[in-house]
Amino acid sequence: MQNYLIYISYDGKNYAGYQVQKNADTVGKRILSALNSVFEKTEEVHGCSRTDSKVHAREFAVSFKSEKLLDENSVVKALNANLPDDISVKRCEYKSDCFHARYSVKKKEYIYCIYNGKVRDPFFKNYSLFWNKDIDISKLNLCAELFVGTHDFSAFKASGGKTEDCVRTVYSAYFEKKGDFVIFRISGNGFLYKMVRLIVGTLLSVSDGKLSAEDIKTLLNGKNQTPGFTAPPHGLFLNKVCYED
Amino acid sequence: MQNYLIYISYDGKNYAGYQVQKNADTVGKRILSALNSVFEKTEEVHGCSRTDSKVHAREFAVSFKSEKLLDENSVVKALNANLPDDISVKRCEYKSDCFHARYSVKKKEYIYCIYNGKVRDPFFKNYSLFWNKDIDISKLNLCAELFVGTHDFSAFKASGGKTEDCVRTVYSAYFEKKGDFVIFRISGNGFLYKMVRLIVGTLLSVSDGKLSAEDIKTLLNGKNQTPGFTAPPHGLFLNKVCYED
Repeated sequence: MQNYLIYISYDGKNYAGYQVQKNADTVGKRILSALNSVFEKTEEVHGCSRTDSKVHAREFAVSFKSEKLLDENSVVKALNANLPDDISVKRCEYKSDCFHARYSVKKKEYIYCIYNGKVRDPFFKNYSLFWNKDIDISKLNLCAELFVGTHDFSAFKASGGKTEDCVRTVYSAYFEKKGDFVIFRISGNGFLYKMVRLIVGTLLSVSDGKLSAEDIKTLLNGKNQTPGFTAPPHGLFLNKVCYED
Repeated sequence: MQNYLIYISYDGKNYAGYQVQKNADTVGKRILSALNSVFEKTEEVHGCSRTDSKVHAREFAVSFKSEKLLDENSVVKALNANLPDDISVKRCEYKSDCFHARYSVKKKEYIYCIYNGKVRDPFFKNYSLFWNKDIDISKLNLCAELFVGTHDFSAFKASGGKTEDCVRTVYSAYFEKKGDFVIFRISGNGFLYKMVRLIVGTLLSVSDGKLSAEDIKTLLNGKNQTPGFTAPPHGLFLNKVCYED
């Protein structure tokens, strides 16, 4: 039995997220169907995380096991031939038997893309949040910095997520300006349900003067509180999944 | 009567080009409908050029006249409120009475976007040609240079274009590499029907070894000849329209 890891990338615009669901078209469903065509039988198919409806992935990882042995390049080619063109397999690796796309993750990086031009841009409507108010990046980065470290992120979990331990470690969180875009980049050992979108919405509420740095400190105390709004899904990209320290 | 000029940008993916047609959804039809909502009555509505089905515009210009006087910012705001979000009005200028979006053009720049990665990218499928063979940019730029100057471009006009004078002046034409992308940039005083796509297809045929620099020189003699293939529309963007020298 070979344990495979594939790295995929997808435009989430037309999908109800990654996770396989009965009555919705999901990325996971398409991946399963391609795996069935190429490998006939697979076991233990695991995605590295759940992404919500409309959320994108520049890099997402899926592990699976199969008795059928194919070399890495053939896996990429054969799966791509069986996938729609908004999902693409980028590369494939052999892994040891105990490797698991979700539980073996050491670090994930998300980016959130904000289009900060004066007038909406037709090319980025599905790939960024249009925000035409001024953003003071240095001020926001002081607040973003507060998220770095190990905290109880209970306040940054949407209802609907399973009850669980809400302590997570954020390794880095900052905004950078690229032309008319403001990119928020955050990496950590794991993220709660809608956590990144709630953090972005909270930081934009600070930008709007509706919340302060002090409010963020209080929110990070983990008690039941209301953070800023949930930034819409279409600006969010899972950007990197790391399995090595 | 005020003569207005608006600069628009659009994602051509869902449109049968710019030009108004009876039984197809075109960008021009959407613009006309927005103009009718905002200005009630307009005259002499002219686009700066025709773009084909699926072709995009980072900058496209439309002039029109109306008795109704609105300041430039209000025009932008009101038209955007009446347009779908894959078409956006970027700015508006008042122009003198004799100005014409098409006939007053001094220079246009197109870019053609080639995705030269090894595996297709889900985010650029509608905005670039996927080409996973090696491209020797320095070699191609020697050939691109041959198009610069005043030539009879008869060989680079698709059938279907009206019979006309095929002499055009190209000011610049070159490829540049940006990460996994190869961008072809061409500017000139005017372009024939499908001329840019035929030039790109011809240069890629050189890249493939199917045509040579000598073949391009012959094609530029203007006689009836067969150039390379017509590169697909979705990689093409009208990028700039200039009315001043």
